[in-house]
Amino acid sequence: MINPFTDEYFMKKALHEAEMAFEKGEIPVGALIVIDNKVIARGHNLTEMLVDVTAHAEMQAITAAANFLGGKYLIGCTLYVTLEPCQMCAGALYWSQISKIVYGASDENRGFVKMGTQLHPKTTVVKGVLANEASELMKRFFIERRK
Amino acid sequence: MINPFTDEYFMKKALHEAEMAFEKGEIPVGALIVIDNKVIARGHNLTEMLVDVTAHAEMQAITAAANFLGGKYLIGCTLYVTLEPCQMCAGALYWSQISKIVYGASDENRGFVKMGTQLHPKTTVVKGVLANEASELMKRFFIERRK
Repeated sequence: MINPFTDEYFMKKALHEAEMAFEKGEIPVGALIVIDNKVIARGHNLTEMLVDVTAHAEMQAITAAANFLGGKYLIGCTLYVTLEPCQMCAGALYWSQISKIVYGASDENRGFVKMGTQLHPKTTVVKGVLANEASELMKRFFIERRK
Repeated sequence: MINPFTDEYFMKKALHEAEMAFEKGEIPVGALIVIDNKVIARGHNLTEMLVDVTAHAEMQAITAAANFLGGKYLIGCTLYVTLEPCQMCAGALYWSQISKIVYGASDENRGFVKMGTQLHPKTTVVKGVLANEASELMKRFFIERRK
């Protein structure tokens, strides 16, 4: 039996969230939180619409997942996000003790790796999943915004 | 003329917010955002009540201040917070481009200084304002919680 629930499978759904951000004129980043192959939270960047620097896709997904679980710790959960998390989001993920983070495109300037933000010691990280799709979407967004 | 609007003046109000968190059984941290000597946002830690690791005092104050200003950048604003911000909150403050951060007690374990979180280059920092009051409140909280 083929397991359909691969990292790519869920990242495609996160990319769909990123496209929703794009359509709203937001920097296109999407996120998803999954437990036992079940999607329990979705989010996309809404910093412009909500006029709030904290409204990153990951932050919304973290809040929604905790809401769903009825507990603030995301142990056993995986975050899928199209772009490498920033300091703020990585800091929130640290507090959440999330088990796994899967991200698409790297953010060489403001991503948590370059910034040196610490994750929880129990969190594992997978990077580069559908990275080309995520960065193409970002590039398309910035080209259109310049017009 | 004596200027009543000192850092201590506003930090006392942030301590009042921290006391409100204490009364709710939350780790007692309070925050305030001020522009032109006017308080435009208040917040206190609500991570337990909201079941949300992102509900730190600073995060709520950042969102509320942007809401008040109708813009997401907090240029010209000062944050007063009773405890040194963590990675998440410092990361949010980075995005906000806030002009000044004044904090009370240092957090040697999880504060942004130890963690190496970057603030915006235009942000200035003042530390140790009413630090004893803030750390006494924290100590009292953890003693009571252990009972």
